[in-house]
Amino acid sequence: MKIAIDMARETVGQTSPNPSVAAIVVKHNQIVGVGVHVKAGEPHAEVHALRMAGEKAKDAEIYVTLEPCSHHGQTPPCAEAVIEAGIKRVVVASNDPNPKVSGRGIRLMKEHGLEVKTEVLKKEADELNTSFFHFIQQKEPYVRLKTAMSLDGKIATSTGESQWITGEEARLDGHHYRHRSDAILVGINTVLMDNPKLTTRIKGEGRHPKRIVLDTHLRMPPSSQLIQDDSAPTWIFVGNHVKKEDLHAYEKYEHVTIIQLNGEQVSIKEVLRYLGEQKVTSLLVEGGATIADAFVRAGKVDETVTYMAPKLIGGKEALTPVGGKGIHQLKNVSSFEIVSTEKIGDDIKIVSVRKGES
Amino acid sequence: MKIAIDMARETVGQTSPNPSVAAIVVKHNQIVGVGVHVKAGEPHAEVHALRMAGEKAKDAEIYVTLEPCSHHGQTPPCAEAVIEAGIKRVVVASNDPNPKVSGRGIRLMKEHGLEVKTEVLKKEADELNTSFFHFIQQKEPYVRLKTAMSLDGKIATSTGESQWITGEEARLDGHHYRHRSDAILVGINTVLMDNPKLTTRIKGEGRHPKRIVLDTHLRMPPSSQLIQDDSAPTWIFVGNHVKKEDLHAYEKYEHVTIIQLNGEQVSIKEVLRYLGEQKVTSLLVEGGATIADAFVRAGKVDETVTYMAPKLIGGKEALTPVGGKGIHQLKNVSSFEIVSTEKIGDDIKIVSVRKGES
Repeated sequence: MKIAIDMARETVGQTSPNPSVAAIVVKHNQIVGVGVHVKAGEPHAEVHALRMAGEKAKDAEIYVTLEPCSHHGQTPPCAEAVIEAGIKRVVVASNDPNPKVSGRGIRLMKEHGLEVKTEVLKKEADELNTSFFHFIQQKEPYVRLKTAMSLDGKIATSTGESQWITGEEARLDGHHYRHRSDAILVGINTVLMDNPKLTTRIKGEGRHPKRIVLDTHLRMPPSSQLIQDDSAPTWIFVGNHVKKEDLHAYEKYEHVTIIQLNGEQVSIKEVLRYLGEQKVTSLLVEGGATIADAFVRAGKVDETVTYMAPKLIGGKEALTPVGGKGIHQLKNVSSFEIVSTEKIGDDIKIVSVRKGES
Repeated sequence: MKIAIDMARETVGQTSPNPSVAAIVVKHNQIVGVGVHVKAGEPHAEVHALRMAGEKAKDAEIYVTLEPCSHHGQTPPCAEAVIEAGIKRVVVASNDPNPKVSGRGIRLMKEHGLEVKTEVLKKEADELNTSFFHFIQQKEPYVRLKTAMSLDGKIATSTGESQWITGEEARLDGHHYRHRSDAILVGINTVLMDNPKLTTRIKGEGRHPKRIVLDTHLRMPPSSQLIQDDSAPTWIFVGNHVKKEDLHAYEKYEHVTIIQLNGEQVSIKEVLRYLGEQKVTSLLVEGGATIADAFVRAGKVDETVTYMAPKLIGGKEALTPVGGKGIHQLKNVSSFEIVSTEKIGDDIKIVSVRKGES
């Protein structure tokens, strides 16, 4: 199972809106079939592994990191494929996160006389699909807030200098979160100040997330990189007071979509609901301080990734990662749980997840 | 040597202005004498260990965590005592930090035919006496900046609520730094807002540091705990424009001293020089944000101890650990090196030392 989880881990970020899954068929203590789910729309991991095993699947065992599905989606249900292949014993790590169908695939296999063992290395396997599980249950993307700051909580000096507080290693590490996310979100101020491209720069082939800008008054300059560079879709959320004729300037860019929801203000909750409908399972919030505050006050941050440089900058006026109005009373502040701290170059990375988040 | 270092570690905080040192006399692979330096003015570790060994010190080995001294201070030089006791072999961890006398004790012993081995577990032994080494070389206290903040760098909400951001374990852990410090320093605003006692509350008997307040205009209320509670000295630094008659109100408190240096403003550099003259080897800076900034801008923070609670508070107006004017350009920011991160209760503690600090 450990090998299957390691295989599945390599596919994190590429299977959305599906989960990352791997399967291994074992007969007489030898691996006779392996498979991973590569991409939505393509066969599931079990199918690949069973195909590779062929006749040898008869009376064999299958190790699979997620409960085989029992429903007809874009592909036939895997639980049936497992049964038909003549598998004798099934070992499962994570349960199906969808409460309505959880256990159904397992039940089906048991009814056909297969021996089924569940929750083997469940915790490790669950971690691969945090976003997917959250998405299935909440119907909204899993929100990760990424920040980079000094030891005294500054993202810039009081004169606005911000490049760079953290080192190159930390900045490169941050790109892995872009690769793993379906979408990346910034506020219009970040666009106006930094004119970022928001693409993924990692070794090998990085997946570019959809680029999302919250821009109530549609101030996005058509000359900005997010409009001129078409290597990923750009979605701009604007208030409903923005006039239709103002949208024309963006129509010729095929990768650009302007979305008007209800309300003059762009509401975080509505944006997340909309993104969920569009099958965005994971969202990386990268800035700036006011946007981060809007997510914090909406209670919609599921995970934090904080890069911290061992520097003291000081300054009452220097920007901090979460600005805006803030939460006024400590009793209303949501608590997170630190899941890892890691040294990256000269900096450290601290990852925490919201308490109660699966 | 490892045992000697462990013994010396237990005395950190109680030997100031002297270093923490332990010695062990070994003969035929058996420990025949142990000693630690307990308190300034009392015998050094070597003397205790040799006394305990008595006649058995002849032809024995001695392990000592710091190079035996060669000068006549309050006690006779230990290097001579080692020679007179008939020790055959000396194993030393840290060198004497005073560049003028470093190596002199070792040379003396070698001249008398003793075999001397140096720098055994030097790094571990050096760590015990960071403050002392700094003090000997710079003639100023080693400055530790202690802060407690949220994951987004806030020490209070935007409405000023600050009790408590970190958990009880982290707050208790912080008291160990008071125990280990000769003095603790806060600004007058912290006194006016929190009326703290600044004493050490730890299990067993904690050592209370001297309590130092920077109070340019002498706004210290005589009713405050730092004046009414006499469990440790309180030193108040004021500007030279404060009138002599205004000092009368504090004269009847024997533990209170008011210090006027040059200048209307209290200068961090002058305060540190003064404290060095008074044999304060280590200083814990606990607040608030403006005082921290003054130390940062003076380039006088040697170590940071940051407790970080996994919470997001937000708020452009919320206080951060280092306020004031701050450093304007990133190229002028001093860099630190992270030496440890540790989970304490729900929080984490991050310790860093200034780059180049021994």
